[in-house]
Amino acid sequence: MTEPETAATAAGRPSGPMPPSMQFTPEGRLRHLLTIEGLSPELVTEILDTAESFVGMNAQTVKKVPLLRGKTVMNLFFEASTRTRTTFELAAKRLSADVLNINISTSSTVKGESLLDTLRNLQAMYVDMFVVRHADSGAAHFIARHVAPHVSVLNAGDGRHAHPTQALLDMFTIRRHKGDFSRLKVAIVGDILHSRVARSQIQALNLLGTGEVRVIGPKTLLPAHVEDLGVRPFHDIRTGLKDVDVIIMLRLQRERMDSGLLPSEHEFFQLWGLNEERLALAAPDAIVMHPGPANRGVEIDSRVADGPRSVILEQVTYGIAVRMAVMSLIVGASVNQGAAQ
Amino acid sequence: MTEPETAATAAGRPSGPMPPSMQFTPEGRLRHLLTIEGLSPELVTEILDTAESFVGMNAQTVKKVPLLRGKTVMNLFFEASTRTRTTFELAAKRLSADVLNINISTSSTVKGESLLDTLRNLQAMYVDMFVVRHADSGAAHFIARHVAPHVSVLNAGDGRHAHPTQALLDMFTIRRHKGDFSRLKVAIVGDILHSRVARSQIQALNLLGTGEVRVIGPKTLLPAHVEDLGVRPFHDIRTGLKDVDVIIMLRLQRERMDSGLLPSEHEFFQLWGLNEERLALAAPDAIVMHPGPANRGVEIDSRVADGPRSVILEQVTYGIAVRMAVMSLIVGASVNQGAAQ
Amino acid sequence: MTEPETAATAAGRPSGPMPPSMQFTPEGRLRHLLTIEGLSPELVTEILDTAESFVGMNAQTVKKVPLLRGKTVMNLFFEASTRTRTTFELAAKRLSADVLNINISTSSTVKGESLLDTLRNLQAMYVDMFVVRHADSGAAHFIARHVAPHVSVLNAGDGRHAHPTQALLDMFTIRRHKGDFSRLKVAIVGDILHSRVARSQIQALNLLGTGEVRVIGPKTLLPAHVEDLGVRPFHDIRTGLKDVDVIIMLRLQRERMDSGLLPSEHEFFQLWGLNEERLALAAPDAIVMHPGPANRGVEIDSRVADGPRSVILEQVTYGIAVRMAVMSLIVGASVNQGAAQ
Repeated sequence: MTEPETAATAAGRPSGPMPPSMQFTPEGRLRHLLTIEGLSPELVTEILDTAESFVGMNAQTVKKVPLLRGKTVMNLFFEASTRTRTTFELAAKRLSADVLNINISTSSTVKGESLLDTLRNLQAMYVDMFVVRHADSGAAHFIARHVAPHVSVLNAGDGRHAHPTQALLDMFTIRRHKGDFSRLKVAIVGDILHSRVARSQIQALNLLGTGEVRVIGPKTLLPAHVEDLGVRPFHDIRTGLKDVDVIIMLRLQRERMDSGLLPSEHEFFQLWGLNEERLALAAPDAIVMHPGPANRGVEIDSRVADGPRSVILEQVTYGIAVRMAVMSLIVGASVNQGAAQ
Repeated sequence: MTEPETAATAAGRPSGPMPPSMQFTPEGRLRHLLTIEGLSPELVTEILDTAESFVGMNAQTVKKVPLLRGKTVMNLFFEASTRTRTTFELAAKRLSADVLNINISTSSTVKGESLLDTLRNLQAMYVDMFVVRHADSGAAHFIARHVAPHVSVLNAGDGRHAHPTQALLDMFTIRRHKGDFSRLKVAIVGDILHSRVARSQIQALNLLGTGEVRVIGPKTLLPAHVEDLGVRPFHDIRTGLKDVDVIIMLRLQRERMDSGLLPSEHEFFQLWGLNEERLALAAPDAIVMHPGPANRGVEIDSRVADGPRSVILEQVTYGIAVRMAVMSLIVGASVNQGAAQ
Repeated sequence: MTEPETAATAAGRPSGPMPPSMQFTPEGRLRHLLTIEGLSPELVTEILDTAESFVGMNAQTVKKVPLLRGKTVMNLFFEASTRTRTTFELAAKRLSADVLNINISTSSTVKGESLLDTLRNLQAMYVDMFVVRHADSGAAHFIARHVAPHVSVLNAGDGRHAHPTQALLDMFTIRRHKGDFSRLKVAIVGDILHSRVARSQIQALNLLGTGEVRVIGPKTLLPAHVEDLGVRPFHDIRTGLKDVDVIIMLRLQRERMDSGLLPSEHEFFQLWGLNEERLALAAPDAIVMHPGPANRGVEIDSRVADGPRSVILEQVTYGIAVRMAVMSLIVGASVNQGAAQ
């Protein structure tokens, strides 16, 4: 199997460890958001609080504020994702930024040099922020390492590495429903091994002091030494879901099926799918989350996805406010100042 | 022949009658615009009057107003149409809305369930209005039935069912040139049977009390019992055009040709095309309309399309103002209030 | 070889000389920007001064001004160019215009009539400015000849004819670095014959009274009687670069290779490529320019492109300000007025 990391390395990217500190300015302010790793609990809390200030009277409204007026946000999607791009685009527009979408086929950037040329040209156009989605792990870090001092990079998902805004919106959703993390049991179910979402969620949950973080899945889809990540592994969904307060279902990447790593969709659902009977094993007020789009009948039953415990659509809604919060903190603008206009 | 309606039904859509009342809030205010059917003459007049307030000193200008500032309009085009999408996009931007264009290939929404999932996700992103274009009759109603209470749906053309904003901009154009509808003779020429434009025009013309509405075309392209729609059918264009004040030519869908329903383009022009000689049969100050894009030499001669009686380009211009009017009435914003800023 | 001009003529376009005066209103104000030809030195200086007023304290910022608020700019790109389109889009957004991107495949406009229909429809949508990129020489003039009186046309590159905003941003870059043009020696290197960029640059340099304009390239890639353009030809890069203050490298169009007009890329670099050794022949403080994207190792060595004399990325940055200046002068808005808000 070709590893994305290998491809990245072949393209001239350093494959060594990525210093989490590169996300900050010398003064310690957030400059890039590349990964949850290295963020402080205080900063994550500040992001969630800022997002809270953007959520309107009801969940259906969000304030339009001039915090990024005159700033240019460029969505660089090397991997197509209308849904994710749209949430970033809406977040930036709600902050009054000018937004440009650039779809870059990976083919035109086979050589690292060509990608760098493209980047340098785009940032020369008075760009203030790149939102980057890329199939290679480390792509956002690579770009962050090479941008000019006035440019920030926001990782919108890189390979199997990280998807920090997804994890932050998940934390926001959990906090809204459950409050204090220290008393919570949270279970993440499915293909942990290949999931950038799971990696970022585990880091964020531990950062916020979650009582217990469980991962549930077949051994082949859990990372080796998964306990070192600060989670408790379960290879049986029934015991794993027992009494949990939050269930996070992962999207099954169907590509994995073809590679022979996984059983059939039907068999996967039988073993690891969330149905009403299994949901009943969790705490009576447990919430069900999914980063979307859900494969109904594969990892989750429609009655659960659309049921009273599901907060899946709330996650989408809060995702806008959380991305607004990250963008506004990165540009260093005071929310209060903006809201005063 | 596969009926679009059949496809819609197969996709799980109710095929029963669509209650026109679903376009209104319980308080009787316009919430969705799906069809002309069920609108009151007063409401149509209010839309036209509002559009009038947006048209500037000369036809080339339109005011930019903050009526939809902070609102998000999403163009959901399941059927590609750069021209129509552009008019809605411009209308929304002139009202200061944030606009997003989402092109959804019909393939990804073969199952009604998947379409619903997409919709629910998009509306969770603080969307206030969906502008929907779809190849299936009833698609806009289907979507309107499933959106959240804070979301409005604007039908930008669904199958052969309805195209209400086209009909409204046509009424606006006629009113600007001819004033009182009660004394007018209006002829619609071409493929009435398959035309969503014609259906909506006939309803709007009758609603506004048009003196006489004629439809002109071969029997195979007129609906059965067409008289029940409140129109007078003609199977000869010369007698049909006699003394009319307004001639509306329909665009010939060339796909129909291949199906054997129609003669050749040349033959169609010979029998049903509008040329200068036939135009001379109408009233001396008759105007010529076309929803565009015109097939020159098929349904209309270039000398007529570009001639002094043609108001085809005015229709395009007024289309922006009319769509602004519909959007602003739907969000319930007062035009005067907005203009006061 | 099929000439683009021939194609244009076949499409019904007049092939005669294009009167430069058509760029102005009867009062002598700039209405369209189609070519550098016919502009006065005073007007070019006014454009550069206006651009200067948009450049912020440092090169990374540019002011957002409401000069085009309520105006609609439509990018009509018949030839794909994400990079160029993006600079125009950003310039228009920085002026607070509404911007629409329309990609028109040339196939749909094979007949001149169909292109005209498309244009007339688009301009009827309250469009104030078309930014046009087209593979045919003369396309922007053709469009300018047919638009309504309220519409302006900005040529973003037509065939091998002209690319006036590129030339203006190059002049801006040179002026920032070198000041007075009269004492400068400027060399343009590469395929002069097929380059719209070179044509516009030569005109602009002569207009501003540049001391000496040199063109350097193989005889097959210099126009016949090139001296008549007011330049001094060199067929050896070493003698041509001697003591010049500004070196402008042209992008080699790889399509030309296949036609047999050119040697291999490797051979081209050997004969005409800019490397450090050749750069050393120029004045000690010479600057290196390139309209981008550069073919590294073909017309320019990476060490030069990324070296201390290169101002290639500055050109990109200044391109936004220069396009803002052209747009704001065309709409006739006073910069001071806008900046006062």
